[in-house]
Amino acid sequence: MINEKITVALDSRCYEIVVGSGLIADAGQLVAPLVTHSPVIIVTDTNVAAIHADALQNSLNEAGIASEIITLDSGEQTKEFSVFESLLSSILDIAPERASTIIALGGGVIGDVAGFAASVILRGIDIIQIPTTLLSQVDSSVGGKTGINTPHGKNLIGTFYQPRLVIADTTTLDTLPRRELLAGYAEVVKYGLLGFPEFFEWLEQNGTAVLNGDKDALCHAILTSCKAKVEIVANDERESGQRALLNFGHTFAHSLEAETEYGRQLLHGEAVAIGMIMAFDLSVQLGLCAADDASRVRAHYQSVGLPVDLGAINVGGWSVPALICHMKQDKKVRDGRVTFILTRGIGDTFIAKDVSLNDVEALLENAISA
Amino acid sequence: MINEKITVALDSRCYEIVVGSGLIADAGQLVAPLVTHSPVIIVTDTNVAAIHADALQNSLNEAGIASEIITLDSGEQTKEFSVFESLLSSILDIAPERASTIIALGGGVIGDVAGFAASVILRGIDIIQIPTTLLSQVDSSVGGKTGINTPHGKNLIGTFYQPRLVIADTTTLDTLPRRELLAGYAEVVKYGLLGFPEFFEWLEQNGTAVLNGDKDALCHAILTSCKAKVEIVANDERESGQRALLNFGHTFAHSLEAETEYGRQLLHGEAVAIGMIMAFDLSVQLGLCAADDASRVRAHYQSVGLPVDLGAINVGGWSVPALICHMKQDKKVRDGRVTFILTRGIGDTFIAKDVSLNDVEALLENAISA
Repeated sequence: MINEKITVALDSRCYEIVVGSGLIADAGQLVAPLVTHSPVIIVTDTNVAAIHADALQNSLNEAGIASEIITLDSGEQTKEFSVFESLLSSILDIAPERASTIIALGGGVIGDVAGFAASVILRGIDIIQIPTTLLSQVDSSVGGKTGINTPHGKNLIGTFYQPRLVIADTTTLDTLPRRELLAGYAEVVKYGLLGFPEFFEWLEQNGTAVLNGDKDALCHAILTSCKAKVEIVANDERESGQRALLNFGHTFAHSLEAETEYGRQLLHGEAVAIGMIMAFDLSVQLGLCAADDASRVRAHYQSVGLPVDLGAINVGGWSVPALICHMKQDKKVRDGRVTFILTRGIGDTFIAKDVSLNDVEALLENAISA
Repeated sequence: MINEKITVALDSRCYEIVVGSGLIADAGQLVAPLVTHSPVIIVTDTNVAAIHADALQNSLNEAGIASEIITLDSGEQTKEFSVFESLLSSILDIAPERASTIIALGGGVIGDVAGFAASVILRGIDIIQIPTTLLSQVDSSVGGKTGINTPHGKNLIGTFYQPRLVIADTTTLDTLPRRELLAGYAEVVKYGLLGFPEFFEWLEQNGTAVLNGDKDALCHAILTSCKAKVEIVANDERESGQRALLNFGHTFAHSLEAETEYGRQLLHGEAVAIGMIMAFDLSVQLGLCAADDASRVRAHYQSVGLPVDLGAINVGGWSVPALICHMKQDKKVRDGRVTFILTRGIGDTFIAKDVSLNDVEALLENAISA
């Protein structure tokens, strides 16, 4: 077990993110100091369980920790209310106590639903996150967001709830489909673009190594992304100010995802990748950002294989009014105004609350006809 | 509008409990400083809505605050998961934003479900509580507990979530059935018994005035109960230590309620009243408490009309093994041991983790045959 770690101190609670190769095989040692009651309850999905559940349970056993496993279907539909109710019921069947611990083993969906469940079972029991996708390792590890979907929209029901520990095992990325890896990589790039230009430079040089599974490069990319997120979230845990920068590209992305009904046509990370390009282009259009910076981002995308425009997505046709309509329904709307994160260049994003929808429409018209 | 108020500072948040007569008619003024987004969402039940909803909405209107009302069925079944899901859906239909506010208008059930909903809608929006029963005015106003029931048990799903404001209007108690008023009064007595002997003395002298609806006496009783709870909860918000004293009588009470399936045969407050007598008797049986103190509590119960023993409840027969079994399932169990709150006398309770179940069985045998 080789690993590096960072400490996250948010909302009077404190936890570590441990990043390294082969950590699941040693998870028992890592979690033992935090577990005071058995069995721990592992929540995972069918895909992840097939690959990693035995290793995790064996490691827990070696550390003398009994565990029960609850396996959900993989995919976004696991965030539906009915599945959540059934998850709560399965957890209560195990007769948890206040001192019980849930371990979420899986991608963002599992992290979100298991985290939400932990936050409401007996009014809150401990959760340890073992994210198994690049996206969840860099994005869900920090910030404590949990949530489920309803017919009204994504993540409209949930809590802010900090884990006791996050274990990001880079070995889990070896079996991740390349498309998923790339989608997660888009969120890594986001940290460079939103406020850490030297990290973006590092990615320009090392992005290919990251995506080829180089363990040192992966570890550096994950740690740097998590540190960046901690820095932004630290003083803004309830998302009232600077934390909004983390949504760079996301207003566009959520709109694109809503239009494709959050299906497999367009992964969240792919939508974010395109959304960030749109945010750069809108900033250029408004005279806020040099066109060269937008070009440099496009060039990096192309060098690693990220989609740079809507043409990369297999959708019959896009409707500007529909995309605008989705934006208006985003939960970050306040008094009917849509907030955008715009940029003055690579690493220099800012919150813009007064963007005219006419300008956004013009941008979308260009993006669609490109 | 005449009122008194106390300030509650818990978990880095701070709110006021305003207690007085006729407050709903002036609720608009009270909530206006806290409401930044309209409409506010009133959650209530059919019984309470018929009496108080118009007054509340008129008062809000006069303060320039638009409101939408969601009316649930009255009764404990409103804490079922399906009703909760439907409540969330009704709230989302109103398209709330992060700055939205829910007002819970009703008894403990409404406070619990509306509070839980507020804590998870958009990961947490503001909640203002207007409790309309004596029980909810003294018990639910402080501590931030929210929750719903599942087939596994009561309040096994929920959150700790502090309100922005609590408005306890003693006028609402004028229309409360006397049995409900008495059940709430049991929780008032609890504060005297668990740690405030001078308050118990005051109740011995003024309990009848409280129960006859004397507004000054009610106001004093509610404020003193809330202050007592604040004092206990303040440094123990997540219920690890002294807060357990608030459960005086409750281990017995929950067991009795489980056995009567939380039906109308036995109200929560009635169960708590009997449970506190049992806790006194167990303490006497164990040689911890003078028999005179238990007799004094019985005498006060009899003077106001609270049930003193199981004979007061119309149940065919009680089973000691069944009652013990329910205790073992209580969520405060840790490593299989049931924790009891025992007493050394009026106002001198303490947490006992090492009570033998044999002693509890003996106590229950006596209680059943009495």
